[in-house]
Amino acid sequence: MKLISFNLNNEETFGAVKGDEVVNLKPLFKGEANTLKEVLEKDLLAKAGQLAANATATLKFADLELLPVIPEPGKIFCIGLNYDEHVKETNKEKTESPVIFLRVAESQVAHNDSIVLPPESVKLDYEGEIAIVIGKGGRRISEEDSWDHIAGYACYNDGSIRDWQTATSQWIPGKNFWKTGGFGPWMVTADEIEPNQKLTLITRLNGEEMQRATTDMLIHSIPRQIAYISSFLPLNPGDVIVTGTPGGVGAKRNPPVFMKEGDIVEIEVDAVGILRNTIAAEA
Amino acid sequence: MKLISFNLNNEETFGAVKGDEVVNLKPLFKGEANTLKEVLEKDLLAKAGQLAANATATLKFADLELLPVIPEPGKIFCIGLNYDEHVKETNKEKTESPVIFLRVAESQVAHNDSIVLPPESVKLDYEGEIAIVIGKGGRRISEEDSWDHIAGYACYNDGSIRDWQTATSQWIPGKNFWKTGGFGPWMVTADEIEPNQKLTLITRLNGEEMQRATTDMLIHSIPRQIAYISSFLPLNPGDVIVTGTPGGVGAKRNPPVFMKEGDIVEIEVDAVGILRNTIAAEA
Repeated sequence: MKLISFNLNNEETFGAVKGDEVVNLKPLFKGEANTLKEVLEKDLLAKAGQLAANATATLKFADLELLPVIPEPGKIFCIGLNYDEHVKETNKEKTESPVIFLRVAESQVAHNDSIVLPPESVKLDYEGEIAIVIGKGGRRISEEDSWDHIAGYACYNDGSIRDWQTATSQWIPGKNFWKTGGFGPWMVTADEIEPNQKLTLITRLNGEEMQRATTDMLIHSIPRQIAYISSFLPLNPGDVIVTGTPGGVGAKRNPPVFMKEGDIVEIEVDAVGILRNTIAAEA
Repeated sequence: MKLISFNLNNEETFGAVKGDEVVNLKPLFKGEANTLKEVLEKDLLAKAGQLAANATATLKFADLELLPVIPEPGKIFCIGLNYDEHVKETNKEKTESPVIFLRVAESQVAHNDSIVLPPESVKLDYEGEIAIVIGKGGRRISEEDSWDHIAGYACYNDGSIRDWQTATSQWIPGKNFWKTGGFGPWMVTADEIEPNQKLTLITRLNGEEMQRATTDMLIHSIPRQIAYISSFLPLNPGDVIVTGTPGGVGAKRNPPVFMKEGDIVEIEVDAVGILRNTIAAEA
């Protein structure tokens, strides 16, 4: 099942995508869940599936004003330096522990919405990644159990303002500019993706392939990420883990490539779909 | 005015402290604001003051189950390496831009509650800091205007698990262990503290003074912090900025000092009060 969050009549709702059409699920839940996060919090994914199966899709996907898959995650963890080629291109070294930083909700942007190039910088870079959305919460989750805690998968563009990221040792500012992190187009529920299934991740800028990797190349696997993060904090339903970017980022190319107004950036994950954003300069 | 968040009959409420007693404000707001954050979001601080002035305090402060001043801030920004002595003791260098990292709500703990020493480490350290709570939101706030955006001030203990903080270049794990960040005892509203007023910050461990500084020693001033952060993200009511720790942290003492079960740690800010936490080993 593909689940989305979107605005309808200026109100957040959520739905299931069937081909080109969408079932608006919120009215069918009759107050039992008002957001996709609440579906996860109340363990209602199975019910969402039943409701979607029995309903007629009445909305066109292409017409919707989408929101980031989870518009207000409690926490967004991002894993840095998690593919060899990217570790090498940044002249860093592999670490025994995963490199972890945080994004905040307001740094996110939906599929088809514009990633914002702020007036503060010209160094806006893409980072194609696979995001996992937590379904079942927990603390000190074992690697073995970790797959049971994943509600689904999405594409993520961990858009980065490189000069603000490296202005000090801590990357937070450059990783949290308003509307720089693409999250979409939808969440594919975990029942459609096997544990440890090899996923292919591709980033394209204006149609040209810039990054490509498969999840077997992750230095710190998805189970390891879930185990590590949940050792210092509880993971809750709707929390997001953005699992790391492959080699080929724009800043480390020769010459460097940064995204500019009008560019189109796509993150494709074979088992998920394609997240597409245009770049818009902030007015 | 001193404002607190607390639990009453297992429900979050908020109140005003008058001497040893507390006015429970939530019932007086009759649904207009159900949390202290909502008071800020709806610009109701003046009304809170009026309601508190006209009401009789019916609760004993000492009996309350306090919550962190703002239990669920939208964002918690922390400033690193912001006093010369701390920059020197950590063998770092001053940076032109503030060093910024994030904490999440679940890493916080209230006044009088226990800071949790997790089984993962013995390197639990204190960091006394002054926290500001944002009242009026904004983006690209000028340094000049910044004081108008502050709702109030509190004490903060940016409790850190040092080995997890320095396991990689990014500090997030060691700065976000569950229940390690003390935030309290209350917020003193900004009308009681002049812009640029020199505040004195002291950390005591088991009664012994470990850190002392005044806010004129901040490398990046409070206005500079607000201007810098709001250049990459909007600041919203209830967001928190933790302004940096002075020299004297435990990890850099000779021999190093880490907090252990039963220790009592206090953060005092002269114009605010004293935040007190005991250390409890996690069961």
